[in-house]
Amino acid sequence: FSIKGNGIGNGNGHCNGYSNGHGHCINGYSNGISASVSSNGVSHLPYSNGNTVHHSNSNGHIHTSPSFGDGRRRCFWYEEEIEDDLRWCFALNRILHTGVSEYQDIALIDTRPFGKALVIDGKMQSTEVDEFIYHESLVHPALVYHSQPKSAFIMGGGEGSTAREILRHKCVKKVVMCDIDKEVVDFCKKYLVVNREAFSNSRLELVINDARTELQSRQERFDVIIGDLADPVEGGPCYQLYTKSFYELVIKPKLNHQGIFVTQAGPAGVLTHTQVFSSIYNTLRQVFKHVMPYSAHVPSFADTWGWVMASDHPLTLEAGEIDDRIKQRIKGELQFLDGQTFLVAATLNKSVRKSLSKETHVYTEETARFIHGHGKASYQ
Amino acid sequence: FSIKGNGIGNGNGHCNGYSNGHGHCINGYSNGISASVSSNGVSHLPYSNGNTVHHSNSNGHIHTSPSFGDGRRRCFWYEEEIEDDLRWCFALNRILHTGVSEYQDIALIDTRPFGKALVIDGKMQSTEVDEFIYHESLVHPALVYHSQPKSAFIMGGGEGSTAREILRHKCVKKVVMCDIDKEVVDFCKKYLVVNREAFSNSRLELVINDARTELQSRQERFDVIIGDLADPVEGGPCYQLYTKSFYELVIKPKLNHQGIFVTQAGPAGVLTHTQVFSSIYNTLRQVFKHVMPYSAHVPSFADTWGWVMASDHPLTLEAGEIDDRIKQRIKGELQFLDGQTFLVAATLNKSVRKSLSKETHVYTEETARFIHGHGKASYQ
Amino acid sequence: FSIKGNGIGNGNGHCNGYSNGHGHCINGYSNGISASVSSNGVSHLPYSNGNTVHHSNSNGHIHTSPSFGDGRRRCFWYEEEIEDDLRWCFALNRILHTGVSEYQDIALIDTRPFGKALVIDGKMQSTEVDEFIYHESLVHPALVYHSQPKSAFIMGGGEGSTAREILRHKCVKKVVMCDIDKEVVDFCKKYLVVNREAFSNSRLELVINDARTELQSRQERFDVIIGDLADPVEGGPCYQLYTKSFYELVIKPKLNHQGIFVTQAGPAGVLTHTQVFSSIYNTLRQVFKHVMPYSAHVPSFADTWGWVMASDHPLTLEAGEIDDRIKQRIKGELQFLDGQTFLVAATLNKSVRKSLSKETHVYTEETARFIHGHGKASYQ
Amino acid sequence: FSIKGNGIGNGNGHCNGYSNGHGHCINGYSNGISASVSSNGVSHLPYSNGNTVHHSNSNGHIHTSPSFGDGRRRCFWYEEEIEDDLRWCFALNRILHTGVSEYQDIALIDTRPFGKALVIDGKMQSTEVDEFIYHESLVHPALVYHSQPKSAFIMGGGEGSTAREILRHKCVKKVVMCDIDKEVVDFCKKYLVVNREAFSNSRLELVINDARTELQSRQERFDVIIGDLADPVEGGPCYQLYTKSFYELVIKPKLNHQGIFVTQAGPAGVLTHTQVFSSIYNTLRQVFKHVMPYSAHVPSFADTWGWVMASDHPLTLEAGEIDDRIKQRIKGELQFLDGQTFLVAATLNKSVRKSLSKETHVYTEETARFIHGHGKASYQ
Repeated sequence: FSIKGNGIGNGNGHCNGYSNGHGHCINGYSNGISASVSSNGVSHLPYSNGNTVHHSNSNGHIHTSPSFGDGRRRCFWYEEEIEDDLRWCFALNRILHTGVSEYQDIALIDTRPFGKALVIDGKMQSTEVDEFIYHESLVHPALVYHSQPKSAFIMGGGEGSTAREILRHKCVKKVVMCDIDKEVVDFCKKYLVVNREAFSNSRLELVINDARTELQSRQERFDVIIGDLADPVEGGPCYQLYTKSFYELVIKPKLNHQGIFVTQAGPAGVLTHTQVFSSIYNTLRQVFKHVMPYSAHVPSFADTWGWVMASDHPLTLEAGEIDDRIKQRIKGELQFLDGQTFLVAATLNKSVRKSLSKETHVYTEETARFIHGHGKASYQ
Repeated sequence: FSIKGNGIGNGNGHCNGYSNGHGHCINGYSNGISASVSSNGVSHLPYSNGNTVHHSNSNGHIHTSPSFGDGRRRCFWYEEEIEDDLRWCFALNRILHTGVSEYQDIALIDTRPFGKALVIDGKMQSTEVDEFIYHESLVHPALVYHSQPKSAFIMGGGEGSTAREILRHKCVKKVVMCDIDKEVVDFCKKYLVVNREAFSNSRLELVINDARTELQSRQERFDVIIGDLADPVEGGPCYQLYTKSFYELVIKPKLNHQGIFVTQAGPAGVLTHTQVFSSIYNTLRQVFKHVMPYSAHVPSFADTWGWVMASDHPLTLEAGEIDDRIKQRIKGELQFLDGQTFLVAATLNKSVRKSLSKETHVYTEETARFIHGHGKASYQ
Repeated sequence: FSIKGNGIGNGNGHCNGYSNGHGHCINGYSNGISASVSSNGVSHLPYSNGNTVHHSNSNGHIHTSPSFGDGRRRCFWYEEEIEDDLRWCFALNRILHTGVSEYQDIALIDTRPFGKALVIDGKMQSTEVDEFIYHESLVHPALVYHSQPKSAFIMGGGEGSTAREILRHKCVKKVVMCDIDKEVVDFCKKYLVVNREAFSNSRLELVINDARTELQSRQERFDVIIGDLADPVEGGPCYQLYTKSFYELVIKPKLNHQGIFVTQAGPAGVLTHTQVFSSIYNTLRQVFKHVMPYSAHVPSFADTWGWVMASDHPLTLEAGEIDDRIKQRIKGELQFLDGQTFLVAATLNKSVRKSLSKETHVYTEETARFIHGHGKASYQ
Repeated sequence: FSIKGNGIGNGNGHCNGYSNGHGHCINGYSNGISASVSSNGVSHLPYSNGNTVHHSNSNGHIHTSPSFGDGRRRCFWYEEEIEDDLRWCFALNRILHTGVSEYQDIALIDTRPFGKALVIDGKMQSTEVDEFIYHESLVHPALVYHSQPKSAFIMGGGEGSTAREILRHKCVKKVVMCDIDKEVVDFCKKYLVVNREAFSNSRLELVINDARTELQSRQERFDVIIGDLADPVEGGPCYQLYTKSFYELVIKPKLNHQGIFVTQAGPAGVLTHTQVFSSIYNTLRQVFKHVMPYSAHVPSFADTWGWVMASDHPLTLEAGEIDDRIKQRIKGELQFLDGQTFLVAATLNKSVRKSLSKETHVYTEETARFIHGHGKASYQ
């Protein structure tokens, strides 16, 4: 018998290890949990700072004794409403931390199927076991396609994972991360151990501000600008950062020559890509000469996700060239992306491709399209 | 903004142990949380050791700022399978503590509709806001109907609430509580602050043992024996403690002259009373001269619950006499029971009454009836 | 193997009406299904027009072959949100019929735990296996306490069950049922076979109108007026029919000398009775000389339910007198109520009794109290 | 107000009233419902036999009046347990038909997010809005890579969709479909209108038998053999049809020179591909010279799905060649697949690719791997 106030539970004084407390515990997103190897043979190195990550195991221990709920019906659940007629539910081990900001609710939870997960306003933001798919896809293509990126600006990104991935590029000298919600940033700094190093990296400048205001007030331009914003949700503040005028008047003037812009672009599945993905793509086509939509299935989002990269400089690389640049520039090994994977991600299936080619909608402040509470979301 | 790692969350500072609290909090089931007054005007004094108890409030603070999930769709749930085709789901604030014993899983959770709740093997055992109904009903009638109870034996009862209620009787000199699961007892001693005083009361003798073995090995007899056992669940160990032979050969010989036996007796609703209630009643009728079934609706069990009191001594008191004895003998005020309430609880509705009068089933080891995972349960 | 488009599904061949089933079935709420006897030994005669009713069986057949989903994890569910943090979920066999009116959504479903159930706006109205508790409690006390009731007026009651129970009183010559929602009434006439006879009874006058308008426009007075209205829900139309002025200015003038008014009064559990029950009780106390609150646990509502009876004539009967009147006046046998049961229902437990005695709130149009989507509800 | 027994319900013919039955209803998978155009701009022609298909609309009517549950909280749900700690829940409009066979439960339901869906043993088999992804991917690559396929054998496939897709190939003269469960086949013939034409096609030979027995007993060989079997589920019969010896001793001898075998191969997502996909791939590598794994995200399965194609003849075609063959050979237009899409599907991402290259497990009867109730499944 083990009282798990500690193991799963709570902190205290000088607990090191995995106590989710604080005191002096210092390492690990996973709160210092070493963990059983994921059953799929994937090692998620960057996420867990050198620890392998648990997938199916309740608290990361290799149990010799039974652990809570093993082999029994689950009774604790996290339930996400993807659409009002579609739910996605994960068995819960623990609700690790919760917080409330001026803008949103935030929680760090420990789920059985996806490990630790960051939830904002009832929407899954990222999970321990597959956030690498989202963040590698968001960050590395733009930086790799750029011939020599030295500076990057992140709109949103308060979780810290986007900054973490950018900082793996040795050539990048400066990253500005601009998120509007100080509390989310503080929460993530405190609890997402996997990003702790990134948050304290001297190349990172962290700003709490509205992204538009911040960009407009700055003198410098950037090699890469990354939109890690909430989806355009009705009533949310972010949809204004997906409009043609914003791209034209705010983003483009702040890109250096040969600069590249990339944004997360919502669900891109066969059934969901017309919610916002096709429209973001078409809007960027109005503003940039070269626009490259791409997508990948993110399991914890229960959908294929989309990103769009755009530039006035041609975006053409062979798989081999991509692999070479990844090898030369990036610290550590990528888990999801390589040259072949990216070129495949950028080749949409017939159904989505046809649909994008016919899209005529352009985002303006008057004609925004919105999305129901879907996955990657929130702050800016 | 408040990071609730503290309030809801986890310890820090010098908090040792599992106190989900702050700094130096040392007492309180509610983990040192004071709390807003329940919206129903009921004050639950005994449960919270002098603190009023929250009902609808997430963590007991009187918020001036919004608290997590207020006004939003709930995303964390506790789900109980009452039958395999019937579920009862409570929004969760926190999973406070979890543990595993040789026999069962145990958890202390903080729910929105019912406050803190003890869960064993996925079954709700008792909740902060209504456990007084179950425990007052289990304990006080037998003790009050006895002319002068000095000793009591509890079969099961590891949660400690049954002992707590018995110890309110000033005339009781000795309480033996015998539970088979040391870990459950340790868990409850540690986390159920409301019962902490009872656990350390010098009149309480706590034994870890099988109730049958313990009773048989003892020389002394008791004025009152209380069955606070798990329901007779298929495959569970407890159904053998509901049989005619057990009542005849083990219980009865250990009752003093005029002694009274009482047992929880499972669901007693119009639709559920034939699962086990009517049969326990009928079984006791084979063994004792006077048998008194009674019931009350326990909201968190989603059903009317049943108890059966039995004795060879007549069980007859007027409402006024009951009230007088309660006043004379019991420390503090009861919340649910008084003379009138008990006489009503012991007057079953026509549908249940008819059904009980026709019951012919008798519990033996060969002919046990079982119940699906329903409410009050577990250890012995 | 049986394709159950038939068995579970609905009609075919010459089946007219909604008979789920077979050939020439013509009567029965249960749609002509004979059925296995309920496991609790209760026979629900009036509900099923002479057929016994299934409880745990999926479609009323005594299967010799396995039936859908037997012994397997359930995958179809009806989910009711009792509060926004409390859910009650029934495994579904079928969604039998659905409809939409100007005011509300309506559905007749076949559930595993409670048999067929009428759902309006996502709230359980009544279920095959326990509606007798609600309707016997609503109707018979007022009619029995009246020395010789000849006429009754129902506010709401579109389901038809209230009328059905009234019509069992041989002395009643005229029942006026006034519901605002024609579609609900038509739906129930069509699909609730158990009430078909009542709907076509010549003593019943059915009016589609607002209850207030109807009462005010009528010349005659009634011996009994019954409020079978929706709970006072925020934004709903019904809360105005729970106010002091309504009782004083509309109800009272339409009661004959010695007339009795009774209304359903919302949840009356230990944790829920202050939502509206205590206030409806206190409001009626301002208007009538004699007011009698009573309650009973209704399993499918997951709560104890309340009713309040009021008159300027004393309301005092012994259990034996009640039994005599039931025997003399009512056709068939009641399942839930008899003299003892009613007197018990009218004796509230200590916790609720205290709370009612202290209630000071009076319903006015300005100071209404509201209830979350709880059980018995809807139209008027 | 519209009573939707019809609209949502089913057939009609001479059935009057709302009987969801059949009587003489004769047309339509969608039960004669035409339907609103899917919101994503995809037209699903083949599935609905010339009717466009609804996606977000409750019953396919273009409502001028509100429809059931619009704008309200959903209360009817289909819940699938993907893993025991992961659920996927669709709001339900109707449970259209249910049946029970010797082997399994079967249901046709109408869901809000995915339209009509076939469910076997609580597992989603295919849905109206995205089954084309699964079935185009299963069928067309093997047939297109073959230089001139004249005959095909389907193991399983009782739903009929696999046969339907094969029969679109003009060069195919004979299709043998061999499913073990007559009742499933009968159910699908009766209710899946979209496949009705395929079921009555004279080029189709339908056999009820075990696939192994059937193949072994036949003299002829086939150009293409397709495994549309249940996943290898513990206790299920199908895992023996994924073994090395089966491929070697049963499949291979029945393939013509240049013959191609293809099988569905379970989940192939980043987190799930090692459940069975990598092992099926590796097993086929032991038996065939050329093995081509490929995958695509199937939204209603909540995962990326995998297939493996294998042959002793080289599998190499350019995108343009694939497009040419599709155009020449296939009747109508494919929705999901073209040359580019297939080549992308056959290029796995880095994470999965690495993992497959390292896979050493080989399916034998002694060393099978199993899968929890995941998606495409079931009979044969």
